[in-house]
Amino acid sequence: MADLAAYFDHNATTPLDPRVRDAMLPWLGGQHGNPSSAHGTGRVARNAVETARGQVAGMLNAKPKDIIFVSSGSEANNMIIRGLAEQCDYQGHLIHGSLEHPSVVGAAAAAGQRGMDVTEIPPETDGRIDPADVEMALREDTRLVCLMLANNELGTLQPLTEIVAICRKRKIPVLCDAVQAVGKLEVDVKSLGVDYLVLCGHKFHAPLGIGALWIRPKAFVQPLIYGAPQEHGLRASTENVPAIVGLGAASAIARDDIDERYNYLRKLRDRFEKGLKWIEGVGVHCQGSPRLPNTSHIALHGRSGHEAMLWLDSRGCAVSTGSACHSGKPQASRVLRQMGIDEPEALASLRISFGMTNTEDEVDHLLRQVASYMSETTG
Amino acid sequence: MADLAAYFDHNATTPLDPRVRDAMLPWLGGQHGNPSSAHGTGRVARNAVETARGQVAGMLNAKPKDIIFVSSGSEANNMIIRGLAEQCDYQGHLIHGSLEHPSVVGAAAAAGQRGMDVTEIPPETDGRIDPADVEMALREDTRLVCLMLANNELGTLQPLTEIVAICRKRKIPVLCDAVQAVGKLEVDVKSLGVDYLVLCGHKFHAPLGIGALWIRPKAFVQPLIYGAPQEHGLRASTENVPAIVGLGAASAIARDDIDERYNYLRKLRDRFEKGLKWIEGVGVHCQGSPRLPNTSHIALHGRSGHEAMLWLDSRGCAVSTGSACHSGKPQASRVLRQMGIDEPEALASLRISFGMTNTEDEVDHLLRQVASYMSETTG
Repeated sequence: MADLAAYFDHNATTPLDPRVRDAMLPWLGGQHGNPSSAHGTGRVARNAVETARGQVAGMLNAKPKDIIFVSSGSEANNMIIRGLAEQCDYQGHLIHGSLEHPSVVGAAAAAGQRGMDVTEIPPETDGRIDPADVEMALREDTRLVCLMLANNELGTLQPLTEIVAICRKRKIPVLCDAVQAVGKLEVDVKSLGVDYLVLCGHKFHAPLGIGALWIRPKAFVQPLIYGAPQEHGLRASTENVPAIVGLGAASAIARDDIDERYNYLRKLRDRFEKGLKWIEGVGVHCQGSPRLPNTSHIALHGRSGHEAMLWLDSRGCAVSTGSACHSGKPQASRVLRQMGIDEPEALASLRISFGMTNTEDEVDHLLRQVASYMSETTG
Repeated sequence: MADLAAYFDHNATTPLDPRVRDAMLPWLGGQHGNPSSAHGTGRVARNAVETARGQVAGMLNAKPKDIIFVSSGSEANNMIIRGLAEQCDYQGHLIHGSLEHPSVVGAAAAAGQRGMDVTEIPPETDGRIDPADVEMALREDTRLVCLMLANNELGTLQPLTEIVAICRKRKIPVLCDAVQAVGKLEVDVKSLGVDYLVLCGHKFHAPLGIGALWIRPKAFVQPLIYGAPQEHGLRASTENVPAIVGLGAASAIARDDIDERYNYLRKLRDRFEKGLKWIEGVGVHCQGSPRLPNTSHIALHGRSGHEAMLWLDSRGCAVSTGSACHSGKPQASRVLRQMGIDEPEALASLRISFGMTNTEDEVDHLLRQVASYMSETTG
């Protein structure tokens, strides 16, 4: 088992599903048209894009015409937040949870610097936003509420339905970053009731460089990228056909497999967390909260998460200290700090995120390595 | 020869170079890390991104640190134009040539709607902007001049060096959209002297969904997409590793092959234009101007370019009526109209753009088909 290299960082990025890859390969070979070209080569590419749009819409219980393709979840979040902020000339108020993805926090902060009022709502200790806090924060001039469906670090699911009900009563639009949820559990734009929903391919075995934005009919939207009239005039750039085809294929697979996938991921995660009970000094954050089926955010009492991550990496287990690291130096998870966890404890955490290619053997290997690490180090 | 399907629309998009594809394939298979992950899988992905950055920089005679990866040329053009417009709070003046790409025209128009003064400079009848016109248009409060290196429809090269000299004297930055030039002729950011340079992969046998922006050190720049600090904090989103690797590979190839490539494309184009002389009623726009080696924009006297395109398509020749068509209905080329060509003549045009996979046999086939079309139809 020493040679086993197992990847447990699927919330950072996932390997491409071989079926998705097969769907893409012709578009990296003989097929290469620009969907805006009127000749046959272009028309074939246009059809491929529209087929994929239907597949993405099918997964979300949406209409194809309400889907636009973008290059990433970050782009989609910026498009909505920056567009709404610009529309009201940075007058007015914006709310987001403090567990949101950096692209939401960053776009909101940029709007804030230009005059927008921004309210950040901290989570409860269960890693969830309390709907009552959102209700209290709403103002007459609130233009947008941003709430993710599932948190990327803790995996906690946010009470979207309750919060949407509160916002809809006041006609305040809700942007839902569903990047971590799509492909792991069923996501239905109709039952969620949000106004904008964002997803991203590479988090569910589709390629990097592609995402989609669902926009409720008649909801306000303006381009982030102006130019030629691709994507209903909302997103200029030649369509990334191979990646769009891949996103479509991954969406069709996820739609068919979603229950099986949820159960498989949950089985791995539960096996892992059950095994953790036998290892002294290890706890699981937000274990009692509604969570993604694949994510385990654990605390290693008195240890450094960063050191543990490197130790595990050298033993064939790729895990994360939280969200993806950008600086190269250990930083306390912003999400844990917002939940009131102090810095040393926040620095003692690891995120394990399972994917469809993981096996029970890999889970057992990981458990043995975590146990070794805890016994060989002192807190 | 009836079965021959030949693609002459390389200014719309190019097929992937098989060597580029080979470089990408591992990243669509076993390699799948997020470059921001600190574990080994992530570090390998980070190294691949930085290698590619060096390759793109090498092609442009630039430093790797001054290159950022984006999803498209349109995104890069919007990033610079929107960023500068926002920085000056839409007060001030912006100049662009009227031959510019729709993403420049569109981003400038959006800035104009919010208060910016926008001057559009029409080309001379040779398809080029007169530097004296730029000089006359400059104002004290001009924030940016946008000029493409090569026009996408006519292929005409713009007198960048002269215009940059005028702008630098007044310390006015120049954004150069070099999307159609890169990979067809040598592009050197140092000798051009511009402040921002934009390129895009799929126009030179690299994949769709990836582009790069070169930024002169100390030039003003702000993100279009806020969030996590990828790309020196200038462009949030998980890096599109397979596409970045592909862009790097295509850049390394283009750097090595550029003279050979220029000569090969020019040989095909000249063979085509020489053959056209024997076909009555066909002319070449801007034939005497400095042009890209691969582009032939032709006028079919008294005919409909759209009908000719469909006719040629049915005979195995994919050509374009000008820039990519977005509406499905024939529209007169904006570029030709700006040059003072009347609508019927503008509607009678075709763009032929050769690529590295075209052969002399294909050129001869195209010539025969154009000749047939002209003899079977009446003007």
